[in-house]
Amino acid sequence: MSGPIIKSRQAQKEVNGIPTEVVCTEFSNYVFIVLTQYGKIGTLVSVTPDSRSNDLSTPTFSTKVLLGKDEPLTHVCAKNLALFVSQEAGNRPVLLGLALKDSSIESINQLKDVIRSCKVW
Amino acid sequence: MSGPIIKSRQAQKEVNGIPTEVVCTEFSNYVFIVLTQYGKIGTLVSVTPDSRSNDLSTPTFSTKVLLGKDEPLTHVCAKNLALFVSQEAGNRPVLLGLALKDSSIESINQLKDVIRSCKVW
Repeated sequence: MSGPIIKSRQAQKEVNGIPTEVVCTEFSNYVFIVLTQYGKIGTLVSVTPDSRSNDLSTPTFSTKVLLGKDEPLTHVCAKNLALFVSQEAGNRPVLLGLALKDSSIESINQLKDVIRSCKVW
Repeated sequence: MSGPIIKSRQAQKEVNGIPTEVVCTEFSNYVFIVLTQYGKIGTLVSVTPDSRSNDLSTPTFSTKVLLGKDEPLTHVCAKNLALFVSQEAGNRPVLLGLALKDSSIESINQLKDVIRSCKVW
């Protein structure tokens, strides 16, 4: 049997001195990304582009915690991390697993580069 | 930087004549398994061992649909597929993505073999 295998990439990087693992997997309806500094899958958050937004307006996203603690900071981080992925992936929703020790802006920006290094979309 | 990278394996097999892709990824707190016959991540279900059960009793599991359609068959399939994984993985919960065209018993049994072929726990 031949055909496309689900695309998946992973990396291990230091982010603000903290060992960080990332796994990115591409599905037809979702990009799945885990960012973990604990080895756990972490809080699972879906980031879905708002269908009401159009090309002229600023894109809006809905975030929903599916598993784990539902904290305001999680929504902010998830939106911040997933926005560019969703846009680059043809407005696909992103499913994020976040287990972060450090959610500072510097850390989030570095995490975006880590995600970029595992581009599967 | 050295250290353990998150263990992930994937395969593509025919199950009852249907091309099926599987991805298994091990996290410290979850085993994550996607079984897809559509390329989608599918319905996301958590299968968690019941803490009340002990070694003498039959293990019981709670299933919860986190994303997608919440149908009774999904819970049955998820429990059926994830039970042995959880037990082999030291009673870790299992997070399942299911996008199946065929949920017959024959198919489920073959899918278990597909999961076994990507053992990461």
